[in-house]
Amino acid sequence: MTRFILSIAYDGTGYAGWQVQKIGTGVQEKVEAALAQLFPRRPRLHSSSRTDTGVHALGLVAHFDIPIAAWRPAARKLVLALNAHLPEDIRVCAARRVPAPFHARFDATGKQYRYFVWNHPAMNPLRRGTAWHVPRPLDVPAMRAAARVLVGRHDFRSFTANAGYRPQSTVRTLTRCDLKRNGPLLTFILEADGFLYKMCRGIVGTLVQVGLGKFAVEEMETMLARRDRRGAGMTAPAHGLVLWKVFYPAKIRQRKPTG
Amino acid sequence: MTRFILSIAYDGTGYAGWQVQKIGTGVQEKVEAALAQLFPRRPRLHSSSRTDTGVHALGLVAHFDIPIAAWRPAARKLVLALNAHLPEDIRVCAARRVPAPFHARFDATGKQYRYFVWNHPAMNPLRRGTAWHVPRPLDVPAMRAAARVLVGRHDFRSFTANAGYRPQSTVRTLTRCDLKRNGPLLTFILEADGFLYKMCRGIVGTLVQVGLGKFAVEEMETMLARRDRRGAGMTAPAHGLVLWKVFYPAKIRQRKPTG
Repeated sequence: MTRFILSIAYDGTGYAGWQVQKIGTGVQEKVEAALAQLFPRRPRLHSSSRTDTGVHALGLVAHFDIPIAAWRPAARKLVLALNAHLPEDIRVCAARRVPAPFHARFDATGKQYRYFVWNHPAMNPLRRGTAWHVPRPLDVPAMRAAARVLVGRHDFRSFTANAGYRPQSTVRTLTRCDLKRNGPLLTFILEADGFLYKMCRGIVGTLVQVGLGKFAVEEMETMLARRDRRGAGMTAPAHGLVLWKVFYPAKIRQRKPTG
Repeated sequence: MTRFILSIAYDGTGYAGWQVQKIGTGVQEKVEAALAQLFPRRPRLHSSSRTDTGVHALGLVAHFDIPIAAWRPAARKLVLALNAHLPEDIRVCAARRVPAPFHARFDATGKQYRYFVWNHPAMNPLRRGTAWHVPRPLDVPAMRAAARVLVGRHDFRSFTANAGYRPQSTVRTLTRCDLKRNGPLLTFILEADGFLYKMCRGIVGTLVQVGLGKFAVEEMETMLARRDRRGAGMTAPAHGLVLWKVFYPAKIRQRKPTG
């Protein structure tokens, strides 16, 4: 058995998220269908993350196994072969062989998401699929101050939507929550050891409402303490969010590709 | 009579360029249709530029006239009113009143275009409508050296396609031809007092071929001297090109909006 990892990018506009869905199409089934074109038994993908309907990714990581010697060329040739079988809105960006104990989900030590806001009275038509349009002026220093309150180890229950399942713990460590402005484009950079369901969008929606003056910076502590979704702000729309990259321990990350 | 200028942005994917077309839809007719919803006689737009089929714009400038007092609110309200009548791929970003002698085309002193290339074996699916995918590695220092040869006042006939008409002169002054790299994203920034038909795309296509080793930097002088389209390189595809901004003399640019 040989294990490969793939780095996968997709425009989530047309998909019901990553995971194979009963209603709608998941990105996963498209990539598995491409794998099935190259390998005897349709390999099953195990991903680092599940993204929601309409959320994009530039660096989702997934692994799969094939019978030993089912792929002899260099791993980078696998990128070209898979992309030849994928629609244009999904691309495999990199592939390499890894030792079998590696697991895309369980070995991940953290993730980075980016969220884009276009803050101008008129939307940029070239960003309409990849940024949330917020027409009113935003108080960016207040948003940054509110973001700093969230950084650290906290119970983020107030920022997660009920997905119909209860995670064992809603405590996560948010290691970064930066906000950059470049003209009308705002970029939120969020890093954590893990994210709860719709947590990024709950944080960004709340920070934008701070920027609009709906919440004061001082209310952030109370929001966290309430541990109730109704205590925090709105959920930002899916199309502004991109799973940017997944972090693995240095010993896995720094190893040379074997293909 | 009152004259207004508009700054207009559009995703050119679905349009046969700016100008009203016999076949296909021009962006101009969509904006004129929106104006017709607000003003008695359908005002005619006079633009700074005509973009080709599939080319985008973030800062095209156009002016139009309405009967005096046909619009009493502030000019910025016109932005909202027009956008309410426009499809999502076209946005009016700014509007203001100008004195009648102003002309969007004849008063323009220069233009800036940007061209985006995604230089990686796999295309970024979020940039597939706004960047040209060049999978093979590029020699960026050679491309920059070749770009420097083009800066200045030259006859750019070798870089313009035959549009079925002959301009009086094919001499233009290219004041800027920069190339920035940010990971796999290359951004070309081109500024000139004016651009010939498909000139930006001829320059970018040729520079990319320099980067691929098809032309040497030393050949650039010869290409210019030949004054023959067949002497230069390929025309880069339309979807990577964006009309970024149009320059006007400081006395027009710096005047406070009157609306």
